[in-house]
Amino acid sequence: MSQPTPAPYRFDRSLAEFARAQRVIPSGIPGHLGPTEGLHLPHDRFPKFAARAEGTRFWDVDGNEFLDYMCGYGPNVLGYRDPDVDAAARAQAEREDVVTLPSTVMVDFAELLVDQVASADWAFFAKNGGDTTTLAIMTARAATHRKKIVFIKGYYHGVAPWTQKLDYPGVLEEDVVHNLYAPWNDLDALRRTFAEHRGQIAALIAQPYMHGNFVDNELPAPGYWQAVRALCDEHGVVLVVDDVRAGFRLDLAGSDHHFGFNADLITFCKAIANGYNVSALMGTDALKDVVSSITYTGSYWMSAVPFAAGIATQRKLRELDAPALFERLGTRLTDGLVAAAADTGFTLVASGAPALFYLRLDDPQRSLRLHQEWIAECVGRGVFLTSHHNHFLNAALTEADVDRTVEIAHDAFTALRSRHPEAA
Amino acid sequence: MSQPTPAPYRFDRSLAEFARAQRVIPSGIPGHLGPTEGLHLPHDRFPKFAARAEGTRFWDVDGNEFLDYMCGYGPNVLGYRDPDVDAAARAQAEREDVVTLPSTVMVDFAELLVDQVASADWAFFAKNGGDTTTLAIMTARAATHRKKIVFIKGYYHGVAPWTQKLDYPGVLEEDVVHNLYAPWNDLDALRRTFAEHRGQIAALIAQPYMHGNFVDNELPAPGYWQAVRALCDEHGVVLVVDDVRAGFRLDLAGSDHHFGFNADLITFCKAIANGYNVSALMGTDALKDVVSSITYTGSYWMSAVPFAAGIATQRKLRELDAPALFERLGTRLTDGLVAAAADTGFTLVASGAPALFYLRLDDPQRSLRLHQEWIAECVGRGVFLTSHHNHFLNAALTEADVDRTVEIAHDAFTALRSRHPEAA
Repeated sequence: MSQPTPAPYRFDRSLAEFARAQRVIPSGIPGHLGPTEGLHLPHDRFPKFAARAEGTRFWDVDGNEFLDYMCGYGPNVLGYRDPDVDAAARAQAEREDVVTLPSTVMVDFAELLVDQVASADWAFFAKNGGDTTTLAIMTARAATHRKKIVFIKGYYHGVAPWTQKLDYPGVLEEDVVHNLYAPWNDLDALRRTFAEHRGQIAALIAQPYMHGNFVDNELPAPGYWQAVRALCDEHGVVLVVDDVRAGFRLDLAGSDHHFGFNADLITFCKAIANGYNVSALMGTDALKDVVSSITYTGSYWMSAVPFAAGIATQRKLRELDAPALFERLGTRLTDGLVAAAADTGFTLVASGAPALFYLRLDDPQRSLRLHQEWIAECVGRGVFLTSHHNHFLNAALTEADVDRTVEIAHDAFTALRSRHPEAA
Repeated sequence: MSQPTPAPYRFDRSLAEFARAQRVIPSGIPGHLGPTEGLHLPHDRFPKFAARAEGTRFWDVDGNEFLDYMCGYGPNVLGYRDPDVDAAARAQAEREDVVTLPSTVMVDFAELLVDQVASADWAFFAKNGGDTTTLAIMTARAATHRKKIVFIKGYYHGVAPWTQKLDYPGVLEEDVVHNLYAPWNDLDALRRTFAEHRGQIAALIAQPYMHGNFVDNELPAPGYWQAVRALCDEHGVVLVVDDVRAGFRLDLAGSDHHFGFNADLITFCKAIANGYNVSALMGTDALKDVVSSITYTGSYWMSAVPFAAGIATQRKLRELDAPALFERLGTRLTDGLVAAAADTGFTLVASGAPALFYLRLDDPQRSLRLHQEWIAECVGRGVFLTSHHNHFLNAALTEADVDRTVEIAHDAFTALRSRHPEAA
């Protein structure tokens, strides 16, 4: 076994900037990257702030370069600062962005998406993924005059109180009192839930496959979605697919189409406009008037620049056949990582769709510690992976990037092995 | 009385584009400008889509030019396509926007706002005004372990179900069951509400003055806010000021500061970054840890370009002393409009702060019809006003623009008089 070189990166400037952030921003950095992340990752072995980004890479404030497999937690689908998308956005910005009246580019984008997304007849634009999941639930309740919502365990549908759990700060019992929960891929459990609450369920909301955090991700069992669709039809339940995370990475026609069924409502956000700030609820004609009846608006929802960026993004994703590219490069990458682990005596488990691969280093203690340590070794060598969340690919990624990633990951495993000669 | 020339503008292309929009977007244009607006405005006498914008003007798809007093319903605070803000945004976009890690420009913007806003020690960034009002309410509930929220009649705090009313589609009883309502400027009513629900009220949420729709707007009575602040302190109630609409137009230090009190939490959105998509919840150190404890994040919330735009916007607002400019030009404008009405035998009532003036044409029938007809005459001559909502000023506005507006409004009143020789 060769002697490993230590991970070369240092994060002094990131840590100093983080201290500055903590003085004026709650948590310093809200969300996945704040101090709560201390639970999952060694705090001082990760960068906190990026200084610039291009293609499949970003550079942190200490000057370290990273091959990035988080893609801004999803929005970077074509590569950072994609020249075609940025040119379309700049051209629109030279005409107008947020004006008292919308631009017709909003209509152009809606037409493009309606043409592209198999199950949908219309598009409603907002800013957050959560704006669209909340509108979906309000629409289902208004359409059915029922209250209950079925969630699939492992779900994430944003941060509105109705999506959270009773023991989370700021959440009331009333916010979640009509939530029902069923395990993923378990039709019997779902049938029981539907039967027990017959005539009371407004919607079933689910991601197209179980891509939850801290657990191996699971694709749908054969026939699962077709049976769920039939069950919803039988019970008059609105079927909402939350495609915020997987949308346009599995299939440009929607992840419901990818798995061979049609949603009633489908939500998009992350990969819709390569980072320009826009989300969309799409749905069938049967629900169009109901959506129209709901009071739902926001200050920037008709911002024209993100629509222009969205049109350019979707066109380029089609030209590249990006979902096929993600499948091919994602498979090459996860196969390579699994082999690198095996070569150093570790067992790495890759799960979920290759475009959104989830990793777990198998460990007899079932602790995430060893996995986190390996991730830190990768990050300290210029490959940005995460320890508890699915990853994301972008279309600027090349085979050479993938092969370089596997090489660095192998070095990281070697370093891990030298410190844990006993680990399985 | 001179014979009026008819309003010259036609909106054929707008109406054709609206028909196209209705095929693929629920309501065609969601919000204030969709077909529900048919209740308030003659549908075919208003433009539907803008083609370009600059400074204080926009041009619709039929080529009509408008002096715009809606400013995108608020975001346009410096003038459309402000060159300084756009240059700052472009420079940031050339480095990075939405990346896996945030940019330190987020920290710079938080520091600027904390320095500028009198009552606040920290800033939390999101996308919608409603993201920040919801986080404020969750924070108040988490901090107090209480459920009830006091609203002031005439309020608008976004579109989340908790902000809506029980008879609105998609809203459940459980969403609004802990809402209490008190009339604006009525301290006795507020004291009774606080006494009746002692120990149960988490927050009072209010706009800095009553700038509701369809009613004359009302500034705070002398001493009102100071008494409300004392009442909240006495009862341990978190005082939330929703400054989404008025923020940075009355006072760059916050509208609470303008009216001589300190909020516990204050929300900003519209005028924060001249249309670039960002909002902020700001608050006191006492609530910082509670905010940190709440699960609250979104796909684009660390988008760097809007932060850079926000810094440039706030700096320029300070350089121009924009609130003083708005007070001066808003007063000149509303005085001129009121005089033009009087000159043609009408009584126009202007209310609210001049920066956000609200108009109502007084009418013995107390119908909005005559007012709507006058608005349509103004719009058809190139002055974009609205019939049921406060207006907004931007800092690109000049005295010449204001005087031109008054001239056009006078023509509109003359046309109205010729059709309604009897109206009071």
